Amino acid sequence: MLISSRANARIKHLRRLRTRRGREESDLFLAEGLRLARDAVECGAEIVSLVIAPALLDEEAAQEVASLRQSADAEVLEVTPEVLETLTPQGVGEGVVLAARRRWRRLEEVAPSDRSLWVAAHRVEHPGTLGTILRTLDAVGGEGLIVLDDSADPHDPVAVRASLGAVFTRQLVRARWPEFAEWKRRTGCHLVGAAPSAGADYRQAAYPRPLVILLGSERGGLSEEQTALCDQVVAIPMRGRVDSLHLSVAAGLLLYQAAG
Amino acid sequence: MLISSRANARIKHLRRLRTRRGREESDLFLAEGLRLARDAVECGAEIVSLVIAPALLDEEAAQEVASLRQSADAEVLEVTPEVLETLTPQGVGEGVVLAARRRWRRLEEVAPSDRSLWVAAHRVEHPGTLGTILRTLDAVGGEGLIVLDDSADPHDPVAVRASLGAVFTRQLVRARWPEFAEWKRRTGCHLVGAAPSAGADYRQAAYPRPLVILLGSERGGLSEEQTALCDQVVAIPMRGRVDSLHLSVAAGLLLYQAAG
Repeated sequence: MLISSRANARIKHLRRLRTRRGREESDLFLAEGLRLARDAVECGAEIVSLVIAPALLDEEAAQEVASLRQSADAEVLEVTPEVLETLTPQGVGEGVVLAARRRWRRLEEVAPSDRSLWVAAHRVEHPGTLGTILRTLDAVGGEGLIVLDDSADPHDPVAVRASLGAVFTRQLVRARWPEFAEWKRRTGCHLVGAAPSAGADYRQAAYPRPLVILLGSERGGLSEEQTALCDQVVAIPMRGRVDSLHLSVAAGLLLYQAAG
Repeated sequence: MLISSRANARIKHLRRLRTRRGREESDLFLAEGLRLARDAVECGAEIVSLVIAPALLDEEAAQEVASLRQSADAEVLEVTPEVLETLTPQGVGEGVVLAARRRWRRLEEVAPSDRSLWVAAHRVEHPGTLGTILRTLDAVGGEGLIVLDDSADPHDPVAVRASLGAVFTRQLVRARWPEFAEWKRRTGCHLVGAAPSAGADYRQAAYPRPLVILLGSERGGLSEEQTALCDQVVAIPMRGRVDSLHLSVAAGLLLYQAAG
């Protein structure tokens, strides 16, 4: 039975996952496109709903969707392209959207290994930036992302898309700052903070593992309290007029430097 | 006289600068916020119109705007916040928008010096990515951006905002590919292309000046013809599941590596 009404109750429920409140209420999030669907299955994500617009699938995509339906023990909803579009307004039009269980871990469950590399992001505003950092974390083999206090949500559709699937391959943790500070002291992780103006050149610093790279918000950077918790604060040289890099570029430089 | 109608002819004309066609027709582009206005003045941009919403300015901002009005020999339009908002729908609400002459240079006028560092971007789709690359170019002291074939427009409001003012500090060039290839051969610039899978590790490569870093589109990367023109093709190691970095992160890594 093809769902052609945007007012369909299941579709309305899924559409609410585009909002943070909807995700909090149901503990689900949306991922769009065949590529992310494949990543979700192969990474063992708990897929709850699979929404398919058969009219948008070519033969190859239809075959892949058929195998997705088999691997994912999920509710399947077949919809018109118009209905699918209400789930992904900026969508890539690949004809598939899924809803999966969110992947939050609790910080207290995280026991960093001798090789661990994490990013902790404090009050980062843009979900796309978190997604891009996840993508880079995947590329350097980092463990995952610790989202502190009132940051954007890495399960936001913009973050999921920007992560290119890394939202499924990396670990996601959220915590309040005091809890993070306590965890850092208890586990003995090496904490490197990034500040545009102060600190040693990031290329001269040591990055012993287990390592957490701490990034402040796009506007405010790190607070004094946060800087004080760091074992080292590093700076990326700025030779021009602009006083900071885009946070995802800064994260990329630090992660590749640390990954060696 | 405060303009309170969105249908005002001058405002309508300026609103068209949000579109590529509008910018092509009038050779102007928009920049928003006090910070960019300051950058525009200090970098000697030709400011044609200054649109101000006095109701949005606090005392300090009002003083700065007064000094902007003196430095810029521009038409000044005072408008209501509602009218200003039609020029910057995702605006930062700082109460100032300006229209400046675009800053395209022709490639044939560009004579690379012994220290030149450029980025050439081929068919990059996202204006935000071009803006972020400009921001990083400013940070490493690079010359500017060469936009090839049908790339996004670095004068797009999204690019201007992402550049954090670097759109005024860096040079902007546009060219077709054959013209660029001819220029590269004639000037003897060293051309380094980035490809996710092939090529030497970017950290092992040489970056002699004058240098141009060539970036392909987000989806397609570099073509064979483009790779063939490169003196060296470098790769950024990818250890995870994702097969490429965000283009602005890749550009950041290569620019900082090349800048040394």
